[in-house]
Amino acid sequence: MALVVQKFGGTSVADAERMREVADHVARTVRRGDQVVLVVSAMGKETDELLRLAAEVSSVHPGREMDMLITAGERKAMALVCMALHHIGIDSESFTGSQAGFLTDTNHRNAKILEVRPDRIRASLDAGRVAVLGGSQGVSTDHEVTFLGRGGSDTTAVAIAHALGAECCELYTDVTGVYTTDPRVVPTARRMPTISFDELLEMTATGCPKPAMRSVEYARTHGVRLHVRSAFTWQEGTWVDEEEPDMEQAIVSAVTHDTSEAKMTLAGVPDRPGVAATVFRALADQEVNVDMIVQNVSDHGVTDISFTVPHADLASAMEHTERLAAEVGAAGVSSDDTIARVSVVGAGMRSNPGVAATMFETLSSCGVNIQMISTSAIRVSCVVDGGQVEDAVRALHEAFGLHEA
Amino acid sequence: MALVVQKFGGTSVADAERMREVADHVARTVRRGDQVVLVVSAMGKETDELLRLAAEVSSVHPGREMDMLITAGERKAMALVCMALHHIGIDSESFTGSQAGFLTDTNHRNAKILEVRPDRIRASLDAGRVAVLGGSQGVSTDHEVTFLGRGGSDTTAVAIAHALGAECCELYTDVTGVYTTDPRVVPTARRMPTISFDELLEMTATGCPKPAMRSVEYARTHGVRLHVRSAFTWQEGTWVDEEEPDMEQAIVSAVTHDTSEAKMTLAGVPDRPGVAATVFRALADQEVNVDMIVQNVSDHGVTDISFTVPHADLASAMEHTERLAAEVGAAGVSSDDTIARVSVVGAGMRSNPGVAATMFETLSSCGVNIQMISTSAIRVSCVVDGGQVEDAVRALHEAFGLHEA
Repeated sequence: MALVVQKFGGTSVADAERMREVADHVARTVRRGDQVVLVVSAMGKETDELLRLAAEVSSVHPGREMDMLITAGERKAMALVCMALHHIGIDSESFTGSQAGFLTDTNHRNAKILEVRPDRIRASLDAGRVAVLGGSQGVSTDHEVTFLGRGGSDTTAVAIAHALGAECCELYTDVTGVYTTDPRVVPTARRMPTISFDELLEMTATGCPKPAMRSVEYARTHGVRLHVRSAFTWQEGTWVDEEEPDMEQAIVSAVTHDTSEAKMTLAGVPDRPGVAATVFRALADQEVNVDMIVQNVSDHGVTDISFTVPHADLASAMEHTERLAAEVGAAGVSSDDTIARVSVVGAGMRSNPGVAATMFETLSSCGVNIQMISTSAIRVSCVVDGGQVEDAVRALHEAFGLHEA
Repeated sequence: MALVVQKFGGTSVADAERMREVADHVARTVRRGDQVVLVVSAMGKETDELLRLAAEVSSVHPGREMDMLITAGERKAMALVCMALHHIGIDSESFTGSQAGFLTDTNHRNAKILEVRPDRIRASLDAGRVAVLGGSQGVSTDHEVTFLGRGGSDTTAVAIAHALGAECCELYTDVTGVYTTDPRVVPTARRMPTISFDELLEMTATGCPKPAMRSVEYARTHGVRLHVRSAFTWQEGTWVDEEEPDMEQAIVSAVTHDTSEAKMTLAGVPDRPGVAATVFRALADQEVNVDMIVQNVSDHGVTDISFTVPHADLASAMEHTERLAAEVGAAGVSSDDTIARVSVVGAGMRSNPGVAATMFETLSSCGVNIQMISTSAIRVSCVVDGGQVEDAVRALHEAFGLHEA
């Protein structure tokens, strides 16, 4: 008998019929002899709907009230899924974040888990029940309801798996695992049977939407084995685990792309210490989520700094950066919201030079101009024109031989 | 500076615009110098929608899960209304039943309040805030979330008013108070400036839909003054209070009617002790909500027992009663779902005989046949044909002079 955590997202519990399918899935696991902790998100688009209502009601959104509002969505879903389990004879109980022992800090909307005390969950499992947890929620050290943020249900699942010492944490999505690239762009994209935490982190940071990056970090820190798989087949998905030291590494494991960001350039910046710090501290204080930052070498004492920001933050970022440009004596600020980022990721890159060169040659040969470059030990990213990004993904997937078995 | 409890129902918080109107109303009370505890129900038809979802998902509805599901509705509403208050500069905090200190028994779906420990509410008021409570919820002695039942928000309001020693509890509805009869049936119906708890209880028991009967009982038991009024005028509504011993009593205060029930008759029942007990205990065990019960005098050792049940319970009640009829040796069971009940209510009836006679004469003179009669110290009810009930209401309202000032 194994203990497994199974997490289903909003799409999987969007209506009564899908909830019953989730219940059937859990029932098969239970009848196989395993203990199950089930984590569910809010139904379908419910979280968006609650945010829309809040925007309609008020321009002021105290964190305490927002978290109370948003967590209502997961409460509904967990109670309904629990009923669906009872309907097919599976005994179960639902638990809020507080009931499940998720103690968090007081940072509303995006609370951090401090500790998980799963006494009630253990008791429920010991009594032979399935424990159903509302995702992405906890109770703060101030005894207030907290929300762990969008995508927080994945984190809930990983954290409860760690706290209970579960054999693995199964994250169910609408695809059958993690792919070498987005299958909507490259139909021959291949499901990876295994991937390391580091690679998956780089992928989620550069456009792979699931699982949520934070949950992968949590799993890596605490050594929780993840299994990313499809809800409605019993086919194996993708296992995410520590890298085996002697594993034969693929040089490049995956190609990702991200069209959610815009590029900003602060031109003619005086090249003296502290300028970059001034700019990016000020943007951080405005909660502008700056991503890729590139600074060219200095030319005659001035330099250009380019960076990417989410489309949603662009207007605010432009406003603040224009003010900062004057302060630090820069020549001006420009932005481009038609860019995209394409990245190649692979743990084998560490011991294989030349990946960046191959990437640049591939992009060049299909006429894609590179606007910005940044690299990590296991990733190379290029900012390119948004209209060319799918061509770039297809060419890179082909060039690195990812469609082959 | 007075402390007032204000309760708004689902219609008053059905959308963002109405929530903002509620916030404006509360703001005016606060700016007058009063402290406010606000109690809100779930938005519009949300509770019905949650029940529909539960029915769609499962035929098994554990009480614990149902209460978790349904209370999500009030949590949403309270957080949103709180934001609407912040939007206009009124500091406020929302509280679940548990946070507000509502300790209940473990009877899910219809939990009874055991104790209210309003420490957090007092602290919020002392800090100069409006405390916003989600209605109809608490936490059980087993530490589970409980629901106080449909209409339970009125009870929440009365209970918190009692626990805090509030000056009064204002129950806001879509009409401007309690009327001498349903104004949709009799346009000249008159708003009553005052009414006693006993009269209002009889009225709510016989078809006056608001406030919820249970909250009136709670208010009577604990001596909480109620003010039933309209949300969107500052006009006085109806005060509900103890009867003044020397008050000049109206003989008849109001005419009510109820079309939500069907009549059942168990015919040819052997007239021996225990038969009625057998029948009604069995129906109670099936949670059939039997209301008016009338038994005729025995004729040749057999009698007829008639009673009313909600339309929703009729099919189940017929099934069980047919089985019981055989058990107790009755001749048969019949039902009629086209009936209605009309009642006259008045504390002055206690010292004025002849009200029943006037009622029967009035019904007779407008051609309404009486099928069943039952009385209490301050009420007379008749079951009549459903098609004639509005005529009966109009005639009785006229006959007892209720349209006069």
